[in-house]
Amino acid sequence: MRIGELSRRTGVPVPTIKFYLREGLLPSGELTSHNQAQYGESHLHRLKLVRAMTEVGKLSVAAARDVLATIDEPGLSLHKVLGTAQIAVTPQVAPGTDEAWQQAEQLVTELIGRLGWEVPPVYPARQALEQLVVTIRDLGQDDLLDLLDDYAAAARQLAAAEVGLIGRREGLDSRIEGVVLGTVLGDALIGALRRLAQLDTSRQIFDADAATP
Amino acid sequence: MRIGELSRRTGVPVPTIKFYLREGLLPSGELTSHNQAQYGESHLHRLKLVRAMTEVGKLSVAAARDVLATIDEPGLSLHKVLGTAQIAVTPQVAPGTDEAWQQAEQLVTELIGRLGWEVPPVYPARQALEQLVVTIRDLGQDDLLDLLDDYAAAARQLAAAEVGLIGRREGLDSRIEGVVLGTVLGDALIGALRRLAQLDTSRQIFDADAATP
Repeated sequence: MRIGELSRRTGVPVPTIKFYLREGLLPSGELTSHNQAQYGESHLHRLKLVRAMTEVGKLSVAAARDVLATIDEPGLSLHKVLGTAQIAVTPQVAPGTDEAWQQAEQLVTELIGRLGWEVPPVYPARQALEQLVVTIRDLGQDDLLDLLDDYAAAARQLAAAEVGLIGRREGLDSRIEGVVLGTVLGDALIGALRRLAQLDTSRQIFDADAATP
Repeated sequence: MRIGELSRRTGVPVPTIKFYLREGLLPSGELTSHNQAQYGESHLHRLKLVRAMTEVGKLSVAAARDVLATIDEPGLSLHKVLGTAQIAVTPQVAPGTDEAWQQAEQLVTELIGRLGWEVPPVYPARQALEQLVVTIRDLGQDDLLDLLDDYAAAARQLAAAEVGLIGRREGLDSRIEGVVLGTVLGDALIGALRRLAQLDTSRQIFDADAATP
């Protein structure tokens, strides 16, 4: 297909597609004359992935290029590729050095050990968790930390379903797309459903007027 | 205590405390002379709650005032108060009217019916969920919707733990604080733990090199 059809089928404007081609986010098409190129289904798919990363995942062009470079590296395990995609859509947290941070690190290390999860000491989501522990204690909400094991159990269940779904997908691009979009959209999905479940649970527990089944 | 000590014990600058007093987010202290006022433990607590709402929950001053007005309304059930606090920390989504939205509404209605949850048709987290369904389909990631029941089951478990924790707290302010902070911090907690669980699950399933226990 020509660039115009690629644009129509994805909703991405032609100048933006040309920008992605220049920035190396999209491979060149096959030249059919000195000023015309043909694009295939692989371009269509790659373009949707780039849009998903930049629009939904809010990745910078540089970060999106890093993810694509990893996808295109031959011989990398799917596990490594998925990790790279996930890291790219997780905000980076610079770890602190004070006592509160050290205590948070210890708590997170103990939690991960108790769960038997294998997570490297430096990993974006781990530092994000450490920072949350610092913030929770700083705000005097220490009892929220009692829920960490409940949260971890729920996270484990979700991860099993999510990784299983990615495993059922065909094609590496589609799997990466699933990780990038699943991570970002999944945050929002569980957030919305948690609120609805809280409303219903609160009604059952606290609202005497609604106690009749 | 005087305003200076209130500032020291909360880390909130004196001019900010004066702003909250003027805006009605914090009740006046007891005047002990023509230009001095005394503040008590209730002021300390209320100030921490205001900070939590505006700093962690990113609420506007107007939204924080709405939450406080609800807390202070006599005779309201805890369920109503918790609902108001939760709504205040949930981004509002304007529902669409096109076919994609109608289909999303139907899917969410079916899901909530299947779960047996009682949720009003207009409720921020419900519209957020509807919008997510529209976005997921728009991006051609329909298989992610197969996970909705898994997400809902996890959400139900989390909500039981969260609402239980709120119920064990003493004092309405402390409970509201728990809802506001628990909602916002809980989103981030489950997000971080989900990523760590995904990493560990992906390693187990996809990484042949790490298959040894």
